[in-house]
Amino acid sequence: MMLENKFVRGFLENFGRSPNQINNLYESDAELIRHDAFSSEVLAITVDGLADEIQAGLYDDSYVIGWTAVNASLSDLAAVGAEPIGLLLQLQVPPDYKNSDMQALSRGILEACTVHHTFVLGGDTNHGNQFDISLTAVGKTSRPMLRKGCLPGDAIFCSGYLGYGNAYAFAKLFHSQTLPYRPLAKIKQGLLIRNFASCCIDSSDGFFPALGQIAEVNPCGFLLETPLESLLEQTAMSICSVQGIPPWFMLAGPHGEYELVFTVHESQLDDFRKAAQSAGMAFLYLGRCQEKATLRFEIDQKSIEILPSETANLFERNADDPKKYFQELQKLHQSWVRPS
Amino acid sequence: MMLENKFVRGFLENFGRSPNQINNLYESDAELIRHDAFSSEVLAITVDGLADEIQAGLYDDSYVIGWTAVNASLSDLAAVGAEPIGLLLQLQVPPDYKNSDMQALSRGILEACTVHHTFVLGGDTNHGNQFDISLTAVGKTSRPMLRKGCLPGDAIFCSGYLGYGNAYAFAKLFHSQTLPYRPLAKIKQGLLIRNFASCCIDSSDGFFPALGQIAEVNPCGFLLETPLESLLEQTAMSICSVQGIPPWFMLAGPHGEYELVFTVHESQLDDFRKAAQSAGMAFLYLGRCQEKATLRFEIDQKSIEILPSETANLFERNADDPKKYFQELQKLHQSWVRPS
Repeated sequence: MMLENKFVRGFLENFGRSPNQINNLYESDAELIRHDAFSSEVLAITVDGLADEIQAGLYDDSYVIGWTAVNASLSDLAAVGAEPIGLLLQLQVPPDYKNSDMQALSRGILEACTVHHTFVLGGDTNHGNQFDISLTAVGKTSRPMLRKGCLPGDAIFCSGYLGYGNAYAFAKLFHSQTLPYRPLAKIKQGLLIRNFASCCIDSSDGFFPALGQIAEVNPCGFLLETPLESLLEQTAMSICSVQGIPPWFMLAGPHGEYELVFTVHESQLDDFRKAAQSAGMAFLYLGRCQEKATLRFEIDQKSIEILPSETANLFERNADDPKKYFQELQKLHQSWVRPS
Repeated sequence: MMLENKFVRGFLENFGRSPNQINNLYESDAELIRHDAFSSEVLAITVDGLADEIQAGLYDDSYVIGWTAVNASLSDLAAVGAEPIGLLLQLQVPPDYKNSDMQALSRGILEACTVHHTFVLGGDTNHGNQFDISLTAVGKTSRPMLRKGCLPGDAIFCSGYLGYGNAYAFAKLFHSQTLPYRPLAKIKQGLLIRNFASCCIDSSDGFFPALGQIAEVNPCGFLLETPLESLLEQTAMSICSVQGIPPWFMLAGPHGEYELVFTVHESQLDDFRKAAQSAGMAFLYLGRCQEKATLRFEIDQKSIEILPSETANLFERNADDPKKYFQELQKLHQSWVRPS
């Protein structure tokens, strides 16, 4: 059981489900609603805020905050295979917020919308005690993807290299260094993937936590066949080398990127590969879904087997103390590589 | 110019408009999107939070907060003539929030949804420094209403008696008394009104401020023909009598109710009245739109004429000091009734 879900699910489970809703709780990155009024299209809607990240001190550049807030919400649409219709902005700004920051924030939001050909439809903007931003994204899809649906044997793919989000967080929190940060929601990839995937999720909470979420709603685990080092984005890999950090830390940490992690059934693999090739899109092969509900991978030629939720829960238990969390990761790593 | 709009509009004006969007900024209570995917229906979407009201100390009962948050968002759908599809819940709860409060909050949300036959579709629920709740409401309408569209001569109506919201706030803030509070979004009324109205807005920010908003986007002002006392809800009227408060304060204050304020063109009046009667709905006649961009009404047989935004701006200038705002209202009243 993913610890993060407990509190949220505990609350959202209090409410009934709409008969028009396709997904159950935690079965998709955005809520999916089928309705007579929408002909064959399904309405996708999601809300995502950056309060946690801002409070953790991860972002202090207003442009980055605006840009990231838009992409974070759009990434949930990408993960259900939807294209955006528009966004609602919710903004709370302290009275002493600088005008220049306001302009940078606006530019970040606007440029992110422009890149994705979408629009701020409206919103609710107020003064308040502390800065807070969240965006509701509305979209539509004729072929919605859920987090649910993968079966043992399905191949696992990813829309790009992983680990930059955690590399960014590591540099920021432990070395007060700000790496360039301009994550991009994978809308176009989602529109292709939706024709072939058996399930999909974005990696916004980290790659291992994403697998943990998938394991929650599917009867399977994961065998990662591709060496973890080959999955790492270049800067993340460099930081690991220079700082002597085990590369898997960058896959386990909670500050992900906005890649799509998805599964494809054997029977769809050829068609998927052809479609990807003609669209000029490269996807990383990661491994296979397995019957056993664990996450397996290799570290230093040793086979490691953990519960898919294990490293995510390690973070949840130490969410207010990044250093302690990092130490816990190191302890876990030591227990794996220690000669037995 | 409504002061409240300055900050918000200043920011939201930075962004382009979607070619699919029917309304411009401030022309409707919810954003209205027409899209091929939705056949003849228009998607209506809005987000509304209670942060300001909670910070002002107006609500401390978790049930009331849950109930009101749902109805506040649904009221925006009512004002555009939409029926709800569902809601997204955004909740931030401090770590020491009591379990019993969590249950009461949940009950308030659930019962409000049940009354309106709608659902919490999903959301984003987190721990945070302070309590915060907002709800995104999605709906659909085949006949969207805007705040824009009324002309001089149109009749002004309202879906119910006004002033209870301000009576509640007055009792709470100045006498630490908590009146019963369970406002109800006028969804059904909106579905009838949409067939006849030339413009519509809800009174959630107060009745005079609602007229101020309408004046912002229409080439007209308002002549209130019905005596203001007859528009007042009973408790609001009693409080005015007992406390010696001029009744119009209850129409001017910023803590409104969730009634619909709308206009009907002369040519539609008969049909509107017939439809209302057969639906068993009673609407209050308030007066007429006029060419002059002012708000006119009578107090103590004296004709008063102000800018529609005047009393709303009085509040905005004193938003952090309810007592001072109240004194300013009294000064204004004195200047009107003083023998000249």
